[in-house]
Amino acid sequence: MKRSDLTEKILDIKREKGWKWKYICGEIGGFSDTLIVGALLGQMKLTKPQAMKAAELFGLSKAEETMLNETPMRGENIQMPPQDPLIYRLYELVMINGPAMKVLIEEEFGDGIMSAIDFDMQMERAANPKGDRVKLTMSGKFLPYKYYGATGNVPEYGFKED
Amino acid sequence: MKRSDLTEKILDIKREKGWKWKYICGEIGGFSDTLIVGALLGQMKLTKPQAMKAAELFGLSKAEETMLNETPMRGENIQMPPQDPLIYRLYELVMINGPAMKVLIEEEFGDGIMSAIDFDMQMERAANPKGDRVKLTMSGKFLPYKYYGATGNVPEYGFKED
Amino acid sequence: MKRSDLTEKILDIKREKGWKWKYICGEIGGFSDTLIVGALLGQMKLTKPQAMKAAELFGLSKAEETMLNETPMRGENIQMPPQDPLIYRLYELVMINGPAMKVLIEEEFGDGIMSAIDFDMQMERAANPKGDRVKLTMSGKFLPYKYYGATGNVPEYGFKED
Amino acid sequence: MKRSDLTEKILDIKREKGWKWKYICGEIGGFSDTLIVGALLGQMKLTKPQAMKAAELFGLSKAEETMLNETPMRGENIQMPPQDPLIYRLYELVMINGPAMKVLIEEEFGDGIMSAIDFDMQMERAANPKGDRVKLTMSGKFLPYKYYGATGNVPEYGFKED
Amino acid sequence: MKRSDLTEKILDIKREKGWKWKYICGEIGGFSDTLIVGALLGQMKLTKPQAMKAAELFGLSKAEETMLNETPMRGENIQMPPQDPLIYRLYELVMINGPAMKVLIEEEFGDGIMSAIDFDMQMERAANPKGDRVKLTMSGKFLPYKYYGATGNVPEYGFKED
Amino acid sequence: MKRSDLTEKILDIKREKGWKWKYICGEIGGFSDTLIVGALLGQMKLTKPQAMKAAELFGLSKAEETMLNETPMRGENIQMPPQDPLIYRLYELVMINGPAMKVLIEEEFGDGIMSAIDFDMQMERAANPKGDRVKLTMSGKFLPYKYYGATGNVPEYGFKED
Amino acid sequence: MKRSDLTEKILDIKREKGWKWKYICGEIGGFSDTLIVGALLGQMKLTKPQAMKAAELFGLSKAEETMLNETPMRGENIQMPPQDPLIYRLYELVMINGPAMKVLIEEEFGDGIMSAIDFDMQMERAANPKGDRVKLTMSGKFLPYKYYGATGNVPEYGFKED
Amino acid sequence: MKRSDLTEKILDIKREKGWKWKYICGEIGGFSDTLIVGALLGQMKLTKPQAMKAAELFGLSKAEETMLNETPMRGENIQMPPQDPLIYRLYELVMINGPAMKVLIEEEFGDGIMSAIDFDMQMERAANPKGDRVKLTMSGKFLPYKYYGATGNVPEYGFKED
Amino acid sequence: MKRSDLTEKILDIKREKGWKWKYICGEIGGFSDTLIVGALLGQMKLTKPQAMKAAELFGLSKAEETMLNETPMRGENIQMPPQDPLIYRLYELVMINGPAMKVLIEEEFGDGIMSAIDFDMQMERAANPKGDRVKLTMSGKFLPYKYYGATGNVPEYGFKED
Amino acid sequence: MKRSDLTEKILDIKREKGWKWKYICGEIGGFSDTLIVGALLGQMKLTKPQAMKAAELFGLSKAEETMLNETPMRGENIQMPPQDPLIYRLYELVMINGPAMKVLIEEEFGDGIMSAIDFDMQMERAANPKGDRVKLTMSGKFLPYKYYGATGNVPEYGFKED
Repeated sequence: MKRSDLTEKILDIKREKGWKWKYICGEIGGFSDTLIVGALLGQMKLTKPQAMKAAELFGLSKAEETMLNETPMRGENIQMPPQDPLIYRLYELVMINGPAMKVLIEEEFGDGIMSAIDFDMQMERAANPKGDRVKLTMSGKFLPYKYYGATGNVPEYGFKED
Repeated sequence: MKRSDLTEKILDIKREKGWKWKYICGEIGGFSDTLIVGALLGQMKLTKPQAMKAAELFGLSKAEETMLNETPMRGENIQMPPQDPLIYRLYELVMINGPAMKVLIEEEFGDGIMSAIDFDMQMERAANPKGDRVKLTMSGKFLPYKYYGATGNVPEYGFKED
Repeated sequence: MKRSDLTEKILDIKREKGWKWKYICGEIGGFSDTLIVGALLGQMKLTKPQAMKAAELFGLSKAEETMLNETPMRGENIQMPPQDPLIYRLYELVMINGPAMKVLIEEEFGDGIMSAIDFDMQMERAANPKGDRVKLTMSGKFLPYKYYGATGNVPEYGFKED
Repeated sequence: MKRSDLTEKILDIKREKGWKWKYICGEIGGFSDTLIVGALLGQMKLTKPQAMKAAELFGLSKAEETMLNETPMRGENIQMPPQDPLIYRLYELVMINGPAMKVLIEEEFGDGIMSAIDFDMQMERAANPKGDRVKLTMSGKFLPYKYYGATGNVPEYGFKED
Repeated sequence: MKRSDLTEKILDIKREKGWKWKYICGEIGGFSDTLIVGALLGQMKLTKPQAMKAAELFGLSKAEETMLNETPMRGENIQMPPQDPLIYRLYELVMINGPAMKVLIEEEFGDGIMSAIDFDMQMERAANPKGDRVKLTMSGKFLPYKYYGATGNVPEYGFKED
Repeated sequence: MKRSDLTEKILDIKREKGWKWKYICGEIGGFSDTLIVGALLGQMKLTKPQAMKAAELFGLSKAEETMLNETPMRGENIQMPPQDPLIYRLYELVMINGPAMKVLIEEEFGDGIMSAIDFDMQMERAANPKGDRVKLTMSGKFLPYKYYGATGNVPEYGFKED
Repeated sequence: MKRSDLTEKILDIKREKGWKWKYICGEIGGFSDTLIVGALLGQMKLTKPQAMKAAELFGLSKAEETMLNETPMRGENIQMPPQDPLIYRLYELVMINGPAMKVLIEEEFGDGIMSAIDFDMQMERAANPKGDRVKLTMSGKFLPYKYYGATGNVPEYGFKED
Repeated sequence: MKRSDLTEKILDIKREKGWKWKYICGEIGGFSDTLIVGALLGQMKLTKPQAMKAAELFGLSKAEETMLNETPMRGENIQMPPQDPLIYRLYELVMINGPAMKVLIEEEFGDGIMSAIDFDMQMERAANPKGDRVKLTMSGKFLPYKYYGATGNVPEYGFKED
Repeated sequence: MKRSDLTEKILDIKREKGWKWKYICGEIGGFSDTLIVGALLGQMKLTKPQAMKAAELFGLSKAEETMLNETPMRGENIQMPPQDPLIYRLYELVMINGPAMKVLIEEEFGDGIMSAIDFDMQMERAANPKGDRVKLTMSGKFLPYKYYGATGNVPEYGFKED
Repeated sequence: MKRSDLTEKILDIKREKGWKWKYICGEIGGFSDTLIVGALLGQMKLTKPQAMKAAELFGLSKAEETMLNETPMRGENIQMPPQDPLIYRLYELVMINGPAMKVLIEEEFGDGIMSAIDFDMQMERAANPKGDRVKLTMSGKFLPYKYYGATGNVPEYGFKED
């Protein structure tokens, strides 16, 4: 059984039952919808109690339940560059704005990155008379580059010197 | 003269003068820092008054000033997938979370995309005792897919039917 | 079940029945042929009533009917650059004429794009004594790039300044 | 001298003079704007009289004038997939709608392609209260696949048999 | 059923029967061997009478017979650059001689291409005391680039001006 | 000096002089036009006497003359897949017809290839009332795969066993 | 049945029987081990008598036996660049030493190539006190580039002129 | 001035002076050799005092000194997959051992990654009678994936549940 | 049976039994965990006694047991560049630090590489009040480039000449 | 100065002087021609005395002489897959014969590779009445994979167990 087989099975049941993701996420609970859906699509993991609830909801076997509690090989079966227009627009935003974001983050925080691991994100609808907007709020811990000494004793992090 | 030559010239002057991006953006004004820096790095355009200010600040020729007011060939000289760690983390977020964001946005809004054109973004420092965080707030207009009729008369947009 | 499995099933039935696309589109109705065929090939979605008609026509299960009403992962199973000559010619037109179209659209409309979402297209036969021609009429909403201010208050769209 | 050097020179002069493409095309005349701009950007050729006018306008040398009358190595210096959003949208339209267009054109015309060589295109602004639209009208000669006989004597073109 | 499944089935029967392509092409008849074999390998289509004969020969179902009469998604399942030495040599000939052929064809015919659609080809053995040679004779209609006017009225084709 | 610099120089002189390839090939002589033009474009070599004539014609230095007599790094500066339409059509012919040509050549000659080295080619205009045609005649020595024995003593070439 | 299915079947039987390649090659006989193993792995063909012996050894069907006697689509299912370390080292040798080998072979033999078709190879163990060595002896016929005349009459091969 | 121009200049001076990296690192001091060399090769940054020392040592201009204190566009001018054998071996180790390292790190630490930012590394010679060995000691902070709640209130990090 | 099928089977059993890798490695024994897990994931081989133990543990057939004792086609089914974040970080470390490691290893050892074959690695948890760290210790034999003489008699290894 | 600039300079001088590689290698001496030419083309290094002789021969500066004694970034400026026919044939041999060579070397030597570092190669002309042959003799040390124990104490190399 591959993780993608499990995803396919879950989507088939969702179709047969006519469920919404909102309903499924409500049943499993505990995490944001993005994470729960991400796990059901094979990119995130669920906790054991969540996997148990998912197994109950979808009528999964023990091995399938365990699989939902495993860290998947992330990025598997994802095509890059993305060909789906919705995902491509996000990719394009990174491509076009990446260099500017890089120098502005570095000027503000010093040498380092915004973590993609200690990270959370929210998607909301922002009502707007000219057409509603998708609002994404992302927050990632700033991780300063560690500069280690010749002796290995005195690490220095993401120095800025301004 | 290529746009990348102009970018290189601007960066050289910035280095010689010891200016910060904050200072440069303050001098040019009018737009968010991301857009102004994006224009100076060759991915966005400035308005004529902004280009004039930039020309004054950096001592640019008339043709260089005009170039800053031109829409560039966006994405030129940008390597994908990004090899710089800061930009790669943003790319990874799109890759790993893309499928979940897709289905959640579609369930909420119907068939369509978040615009990468009618879009704005803010980067802020979110103070945090465990380590400050980079906060990105993005807002893009939802664009429903247009479903046009056989006669071309009655367009229907991003239908959801829930 | 993958979307491509459903497409394969639909094509098999079409072959067995000896149906034309024209006939199928007439039976399902409501949208242009490009959209209906696009949905049956796995790149677009049908409305619920259309999916119901398609299900009746092809003898599909409930889950298959639901799948036709889902937004697909667009671009999946499409190879780029296209190797099929008919599709390649369209790709070549974009490649060769892209730069000229870009600067002409920008000079006419300002900074922005022609939407691929709020878009419609018609294909017609144009009779011609030297050989009939394929006529494609495309119309996409012009979307001006949003230039947002430092404060986020005063968006400016696709300025031109001529 | 490479064709891209000539393009760069022409764009520099355009910037210094502050000319619009409309003005330049009007001066050179004879062809549609797309073709003239395409030639100046290095993807098409001008006739000798047009090249002469262009040389006069931009103050080009004899060799540069001759170069404008040469068929260029088309597609040179064009990155695919396109990273510029305006051009990418056109590319996406081909990718997403390609399979549907293929089967519909083949059902209508038989086995063959829409020529990208015996082809013309017009770009217009279509005023619209909800936002003006970019209208592209494309017309390419249908070229039926030639099915040649074992003896080579009796070619058959793009048979349909309906 | 995919076209590649049908190809696989046909090849299996050919193996079991111990047939040569020459024999198969003789049975189906009407077109050159390259086209008939191309169709059986999934890159070309047969006429209805040919598909009927092929169905009889290979014992195919109605749907399979219909599939042989469909224009396939050409180029599908073909890897480029080719890794098979025989096909690679042809690819190499295009790569190494392409630029010279381009300028010589353009000098002789004006701006345009040799059609890959209105095209035929013959393969023969040319006896030679130093080792027999493969002789390929290709003939494609020259298609002049259409240069259309600003008004769209007066197309000009592949001008040469010598 | 790179071979591409020499090509660029030769093309510049050709433009200034207003020469045709026909004229240049006539002056250098001895080989077919394809080979001479191929050498001047950096993909083939000239003999010493030819290089001397070319040097005289174009006013080249001793080192440039020697370079024309060197085997170049073939394929350098050639982009694959080709983006120029004229060259792409040839590439497409290989892609679409490759599998059929492979099995037909193998059935006729046994296991082996058509040489791309012991190869010649002619391009001609074939007058035709429906539009002149480009006729390419290619002839390459058939090279049978060598099947060598365990002892290395008894090579067997391209066996067919029919 | 695909050639890769047959390879998989043969390897399964080899595992079950616990056979060595040496043993299998000895049973089939006639060619070097590299060729016989190459055929069983789907990259070469066996003669009819060899295929018969292989069919007997592995208990193959008639169609499978015939398949072993067919020239395969060489290079199919082979990933390039190779990710297996043993094969990668050979690839690296070509990459790093390729340019030097090219100029030395051309200086010695004139313009041409070492044939990969009229080619044989032996692999031996060379005992060595510092660690045994793998010794590969390769021999390929030198094929001079054919330089054909304008009239096609007087081919000249791989001239050197020293 | 590009970062790669500065690197080239520094390497030229190193060559002319006949300096070793050890000497250069000793003169600049403060960080491990890997970081200092990384900065001089354009992948890391130096502190201001280090950049000042480097500027003195190499006789750099003010702008060049400033550039060494800038975070570079990391990964620029680095080819992947690496073609240099020394770097390729490291790449191969990641490729071959990556999946095993992934599951073992996740079993030990829970869901997360080894940071490539809060990271240090040492290279040493390990004397060995069978041939000295290169010893690399790498240490990266384990970063647990953050699992955030529906309300965004209760982040949970890299849960393991054993 | 493919190696990936066996891996999938082993993972399914591991899930059903609820085993940890630690437990599995303890049962099989003899090698480091990285190697045993690597073999079960299809990138390494086990010894015969280990394969026997693994067969007993997982209830494998004889052929499956033999397969675990075979050297696999390493790197098969591994995607590069890696899309999984944990493996990508290791890849990034090679990319960013590769050039610096190269020149430092060469300065210390002379011309050569760190072996990826005569190599071992350990992964440990390094407790740390600021967050535990993943510690990787790698040791590979230094292999000097062999410089062989014109006569082949006097090999010289990885000379340094300092 | 880049290594490729030095290569270009050396080739220009070679052309002007009309030297053969044989002559140059004789003047520099000490290593096989492949290595000396490899170094002059930027893929290998020379010893100090060799670099001195090369500097004298070509009239190089001190920095250029030093560069010839540096280990280059191997593989830089080499295009893969190779487009030059001579080098491609070697690449094809690895591709087509790679899998067979892999299993035969592993059966003979156990798990490991043929070193591409402790490696030598000779190119010779093998006179042959049917056409002379290029003979390549390659010899690389067999490097057994090291299997290290859980305790790290008892390495085992490339076990075979037959």
